[in-house]
Amino acid sequence: MMATKGALVLEPNEWLLDPSDCPGFRGNEVVAQKQSGDIIHHTEYLFFNTPKRYALININDKVEEIVSRSGVQDGFAFVSAMHITAGVYINDAESGLLNDIAIWIESLAPFGQPYMHHATGEDNGDAHLKSYLTNPSLSAPITAGRLDFGTWQKIFYAEFDGQRRKRVMVKVTGIR
Amino acid sequence: MMATKGALVLEPNEWLLDPSDCPGFRGNEVVAQKQSGDIIHHTEYLFFNTPKRYALININDKVEEIVSRSGVQDGFAFVSAMHITAGVYINDAESGLLNDIAIWIESLAPFGQPYMHHATGEDNGDAHLKSYLTNPSLSAPITAGRLDFGTWQKIFYAEFDGQRRKRVMVKVTGIR
Amino acid sequence: MMATKGALVLEPNEWLLDPSDCPGFRGNEVVAQKQSGDIIHHTEYLFFNTPKRYALININDKVEEIVSRSGVQDGFAFVSAMHITAGVYINDAESGLLNDIAIWIESLAPFGQPYMHHATGEDNGDAHLKSYLTNPSLSAPITAGRLDFGTWQKIFYAEFDGQRRKRVMVKVTGIR
Repeated sequence: MMATKGALVLEPNEWLLDPSDCPGFRGNEVVAQKQSGDIIHHTEYLFFNTPKRYALININDKVEEIVSRSGVQDGFAFVSAMHITAGVYINDAESGLLNDIAIWIESLAPFGQPYMHHATGEDNGDAHLKSYLTNPSLSAPITAGRLDFGTWQKIFYAEFDGQRRKRVMVKVTGIR
Repeated sequence: MMATKGALVLEPNEWLLDPSDCPGFRGNEVVAQKQSGDIIHHTEYLFFNTPKRYALININDKVEEIVSRSGVQDGFAFVSAMHITAGVYINDAESGLLNDIAIWIESLAPFGQPYMHHATGEDNGDAHLKSYLTNPSLSAPITAGRLDFGTWQKIFYAEFDGQRRKRVMVKVTGIR
Repeated sequence: MMATKGALVLEPNEWLLDPSDCPGFRGNEVVAQKQSGDIIHHTEYLFFNTPKRYALININDKVEEIVSRSGVQDGFAFVSAMHITAGVYINDAESGLLNDIAIWIESLAPFGQPYMHHATGEDNGDAHLKSYLTNPSLSAPITAGRLDFGTWQKIFYAEFDGQRRKRVMVKVTGIR
């Protein structure tokens, strides 16, 4: 089940990346705000340009900030990778586990296979399958103005074909 | 990781199917509409009856049409396969990639294994696992009256046990 | 693809568990209720403490009860495992299939591998990967005051590291 080292583009621990260490990261951009009475819909994009091909980035604090900014007290933060070679997931921020996740995803959807998609000139067939496994989006619940999470739940952005500009949408909806 | 040809019920390229090539497809059916002030909830079912056992069908335009019909300007289109032998996902509509996805899903949840579920007389144990891998439903964000997607994001219906009548729900909710 | 027996902590059929057979289960706890006009947000937690390490628990009736209690006529029941060693999914409640799912998840994310996460003293690296595969949360649609499901769709809580107190959130939102 474990990937052989040769199959990995990066060592697992090279997948870990903090938003503040991501030179391509820049601040949020408010895209839309719509309100009807006490109902608020607040949308922002986050931008990433990871220095390496793969990255697992804890964006939980970024999402929390957007939730605060939205004014929503009860509802959801919908978080979506707007590219089909990336994804989002919720799990523990422990570094050993992040390595395990990198190795595991690589083992289930390995780089460098003879994917038919590569006839287009791309070499990122694995990234599309990694995205399928990871899911494009998730909803994080908000209660009393904060993410209503268990202690170890953290939202991650998973980049599987970086080194280019990518967007993540955060749409916060609910009652103020 | 790649499935052997023998394990496949269909050649990968036989999975691809356009809604217009699907004899079992028929137009939308409005199931429910509910409104409170500017908040709209609009529900339709889509019906499929695929000619072969497996199919990957790009239903993005169908969902866009329902979003337009709903009148929602900001919110979500929730898309759900109402059967546990099908699923929905978001990825690229490139045909080589669709083949890769077919092969990959087959390799992770192969047909024709001695699944215990088959003691019921069914032969679709693989389809239940493929559905688990794919997810039953997804939410697609709406901003300014349209799906707020990246360029290559397209919604697909994935049929893993076709040749019978199946439903997909699209529930559009949000602010008009 | 099938796990060898030696790799399993439990026999597959030992994964099955009814909420009423779960000594750790206790009734719902209303966490939050928020209303704006006809829009209702109603949140409850369910608690589980499974007698064994793994469990697949059909919680569909529990969610239906919460939907009824919420008063929401059209909207969603968002169901979320609040721990990153558990998940929720929708599939058939047939017991053979539940065995197949247990075997299949074990084969894709096996127990007892040398996960790096175990350097922390934990032995549950497999549970984190099983959760990744399963997803932390799902949305179940509500139409006319009931889950708008196909005949065989049932909501399951999947426990991958039990024998401790765990929470599941159900947040029902929509129009009354």
